[in-house]
Amino acid sequence: MKDNVAAAKAALAHLEIDENAAAIKSKSRDFFWYSPVLKERLDHVVADFVVSPKSEAEVIEVLKVCYDHDVPVTTRGAGTGNYGQAMPLAGGCVMHLRYLNRVKSVMPGRVVVEPGCLLKDLDSECKAQSGQEIRMFSSTWATATIGGFIAGGSGGVGSVHWGSLRDLGNIIRLRVVTMEEQPRILEFTGEELARVSHAYGTNGIITELEMPLAPAYEWIDIFVASDDFMAATHFADELANEDGILLKLASVYEAPTAHAYFTRVKPHVDEGTHLIGLMVAPQSMDGFLTFLNRREDMRMIYRSDDHDWPRAPGPVFEYGWNHTTLRALKVEPSITYLQVRYAFPDHLELIAKMRDDFSPEVLQHLEAIRMNGKVGFAGLSMVKFTTEERLDEIVRLHEEAGALIFNPHRYTLEEGGRQTVDDTQLAFKREADPKGLLNPGKMIAWDDPDWDYARMYAWPGMKAAE
Amino acid sequence: MKDNVAAAKAALAHLEIDENAAAIKSKSRDFFWYSPVLKERLDHVVADFVVSPKSEAEVIEVLKVCYDHDVPVTTRGAGTGNYGQAMPLAGGCVMHLRYLNRVKSVMPGRVVVEPGCLLKDLDSECKAQSGQEIRMFSSTWATATIGGFIAGGSGGVGSVHWGSLRDLGNIIRLRVVTMEEQPRILEFTGEELARVSHAYGTNGIITELEMPLAPAYEWIDIFVASDDFMAATHFADELANEDGILLKLASVYEAPTAHAYFTRVKPHVDEGTHLIGLMVAPQSMDGFLTFLNRREDMRMIYRSDDHDWPRAPGPVFEYGWNHTTLRALKVEPSITYLQVRYAFPDHLELIAKMRDDFSPEVLQHLEAIRMNGKVGFAGLSMVKFTTEERLDEIVRLHEEAGALIFNPHRYTLEEGGRQTVDDTQLAFKREADPKGLLNPGKMIAWDDPDWDYARMYAWPGMKAAE
Ligand SMILES: Cc1cc2nc3c(=O)[nH]c(=O)nc-3n(C[C@H](O)[C@H](O)[C@H](O)COP(=O)(O)OP(=O)(O)OC[C@H]3O[C@@H](n4cnc5c(N)ncnc54)[C@H](O)[C@@H]3O)c2cc1C
Ligand SMILES: Cc1cc2nc3c(=O)[nH]c(=O)nc-3n(C[C@H](O)[C@H](O)[C@H](O)COP(=O)(O)OP(=O)(O)OC[C@H]3O[C@@H](n4cnc5c(N)ncnc54)[C@H](O)[C@@H]3O)c2cc1C
Repeated sequence: MKDNVAAAKAALAHLEIDENAAAIKSKSRDFFWYSPVLKERLDHVVADFVVSPKSEAEVIEVLKVCYDHDVPVTTRGAGTGNYGQAMPLAGGCVMHLRYLNRVKSVMPGRVVVEPGCLLKDLDSECKAQSGQEIRMFSSTWATATIGGFIAGGSGGVGSVHWGSLRDLGNIIRLRVVTMEEQPRILEFTGEELARVSHAYGTNGIITELEMPLAPAYEWIDIFVASDDFMAATHFADELANEDGILLKLASVYEAPTAHAYFTRVKPHVDEGTHLIGLMVAPQSMDGFLTFLNRREDMRMIYRSDDHDWPRAPGPVFEYGWNHTTLRALKVEPSITYLQVRYAFPDHLELIAKMRDDFSPEVLQHLEAIRMNGKVGFAGLSMVKFTTEERLDEIVRLHEEAGALIFNPHRYTLEEGGRQTVDDTQLAFKREADPKGLLNPGKMIAWDDPDWDYARMYAWPGMKAAE
Repeated sequence: MKDNVAAAKAALAHLEIDENAAAIKSKSRDFFWYSPVLKERLDHVVADFVVSPKSEAEVIEVLKVCYDHDVPVTTRGAGTGNYGQAMPLAGGCVMHLRYLNRVKSVMPGRVVVEPGCLLKDLDSECKAQSGQEIRMFSSTWATATIGGFIAGGSGGVGSVHWGSLRDLGNIIRLRVVTMEEQPRILEFTGEELARVSHAYGTNGIITELEMPLAPAYEWIDIFVASDDFMAATHFADELANEDGILLKLASVYEAPTAHAYFTRVKPHVDEGTHLIGLMVAPQSMDGFLTFLNRREDMRMIYRSDDHDWPRAPGPVFEYGWNHTTLRALKVEPSITYLQVRYAFPDHLELIAKMRDDFSPEVLQHLEAIRMNGKVGFAGLSMVKFTTEERLDEIVRLHEEAGALIFNPHRYTLEEGGRQTVDDTQLAFKREADPKGLLNPGKMIAWDDPDWDYARMYAWPGMKAAE
């Protein structure tokens, strides 16, 4: 441990600090290993120490002490990110926010909460107090935090109705602490929200969030089977366009995903079965069944409120979003994934084309989401990984065909996004983190403004493999 | 009074029957007089008697007695329809459902209610019991019934989010009584709902409804002003496409509507001001203001939670939907209206064209609604009426340009719709009303299957002017 790091650690000794090497190692990692590319590059990354502040005042203290000693600080919610977002590339301090987990107040249509609250706990508190729940959640609902979701996620279960986190209105207010000589506490609304949401904690630490709520219903989980992939995709698309049928999830899985990777679904499908996963509000079930019965080729094989499966499959959303990849990985370790944007009005055509071009090397997994008011799909395509070159080629061919890729095999904000500098985030980093100590290595624009994205960025400051 | 009618009336003497001629006259009318065409043709229409059953059993009794005596029965909710829907063309019995007004049970996401309940009372009961309200309501919320809305209406405030009543999921269940020798009680869900919803009570009487609910919020009423009509229309369109901003209403009024017809708005606008009326959920206000501030040309002139207008305008939805026409009519009696469908993706272009072609003879009034998952507009254009020929010509020119018209100057189901026979409704009428006594004269297909729609249908059975 370098002297400055040791000095910072010593100055924070009165706070809760992890001493156990195994704990430090595990709290320095996230789900980066979904990507063989990131696995190779980040596997060695480890913090020097982990501190768990118990209040905003302690957060400020951590930031101030680390600022004084030039120690990098990487914030951790639950570490379920997929791109090494929460991994301390330069070592230093991991600040774990698990104790900042209070639900502060629940009002009609909104909640005020601390960042370390698990999505699951947030929902159960909102439901208990008011029959409400958050509009959307990452499929890691059971393990992830609301702060990590806002700082590192993009959308998920609920996005079929409400769009993405980045859409106006899906975050109301963020309270943010800066890493300056004198840390400041700022309250962001409106345009300012974009400064720190999905910024990986590179330019401020969120200590409180105000989020919109939706009514909590006893969502019915459903699986529908089809022998025709595009018919299944059209089904999900048309269903998501039914304005009177309230959905929380509409996923499509190309065969043989269900048979090969969904163990509890397997007995009920065969290799050629394409699967649709749905969450339907109970009051919308009659409308849904009417819709379903108009399509002879679609078979409902499971509904959570009425089924005879000897082993229930568990929540259907835990088959969706990035849980699909997880289930596939467990069976077939060579599988990784891509994040594709199939936007209206070309989405169906583009999906058909990508499938023609790449199946079965790339299997389609689609999540219906609203983008700018129109239903489209987020593709979380499963890729049988062979080489980095081939993976890059698949990415390139998608983009050439017009299917935008958010590359999950990169650890920087820019490369995981649209490969352009986010001026708002960069400008705020200049203000809020003048020494560049917050989650270093994640914002190319800060380190190398002239980077041309021709190849993968490799942060020079990355701590060498031990 | 004919003998058979007198006999039926006598047989129902133990029920509540209106004897007062003025009361009978007024309960035989609706808002048909919005249309100069209907005003001329229906002004004389009057029932022979009005009966107000107090229970489903009494409804059945009325239907059975009238069946036995061959007496027509026209059902009345509150008589706020615009096409003479609730007017007894052949005289006979008007059955007024005002006493069937109980809210039977409120559950998460749904309510069971009797048809005569006012929309306003339904909402306040749902709100009081559970913080919920109906997904959409006619702008006659304060006076109209839920049964009349389902049997005679189409959508309204809330349709910007939930689509129309006809969309799957926006009605859950209807309980219906038939007019046969032995009246039957039927429960309709799914595809069967289309039999009697928007059927003007021509083929069965709804005695109970199960409707989906949405959360009730303290909606913020807003007026935004603009000097450019198409900019205002784009604003409403784009706002309604913001998935994270929860709206209940987005109306656009071409100038000089606001200045000329909206008395309490007039001091705050001038003749050239185009107006936008909005209802925004409180938790969406921050997102809305962010959206608004991106457009320099738009001025928020009123928000209900923070304003300095000496005379508050009242609910903004009472400026929208068909209340716009009402306000215009009051100032300028020559005004009537048209109902136009401006569907995505051509809606904006078509609106611009219709305005170019017809303003100021026809002033644009638009309501953003979702149709098949896409935002479009329902036009309730205000027309300066000159002659029936010119009105028909305006209708024709709209249709030739691709703007579908639902003609509010016709009293039949077909002519007010798409000028095609609704086979579902007709087939059910054969079953449920074999003698053709329910609201006669409203379903052309029943009376004259070969009608070609070349001119306005005039029902031969209409009671001659007195
Ligand atoms: C199986 C699986 C499924 C997933 N499904 C989805 C999905 O549906 N949708 C989705 O968007 N993502 C998904 N993800 C990614 C990830 O789970 C989510 O983004 C999740 O919400 C992150 O929460 P976390 O608490 O684990 O955050 P972490 O991984 O701990 O942190 C995420 C990022 O946010 C930063 N951060 C955390 N807290 C703060 C704070 N208070 N202030 C500033 N920065 C902070 C961290 O430094 C890091 O950069 C999935 C991942 C897995 C493994
Ligand atoms: C100012 C104004 C604004 C309006 N705005 C809207 C709007 O936003 N959206 C909209 O859709 N309409 C609108 N309308 C039309 C009308 O108000 C609505 O359709 C309203 O909901 C009708 O309700 P009501 O109780 O007055 O029905 P009524 O006019 O009494 O009846 C309507 C029709 O339904 C039938 N009916 C009534 N009850 C039953 C029953 N229990 N079983 C079977 N048939 C029945 C009647 O016979 C009649 O044919 C408006 C009208 C006015 C005058």
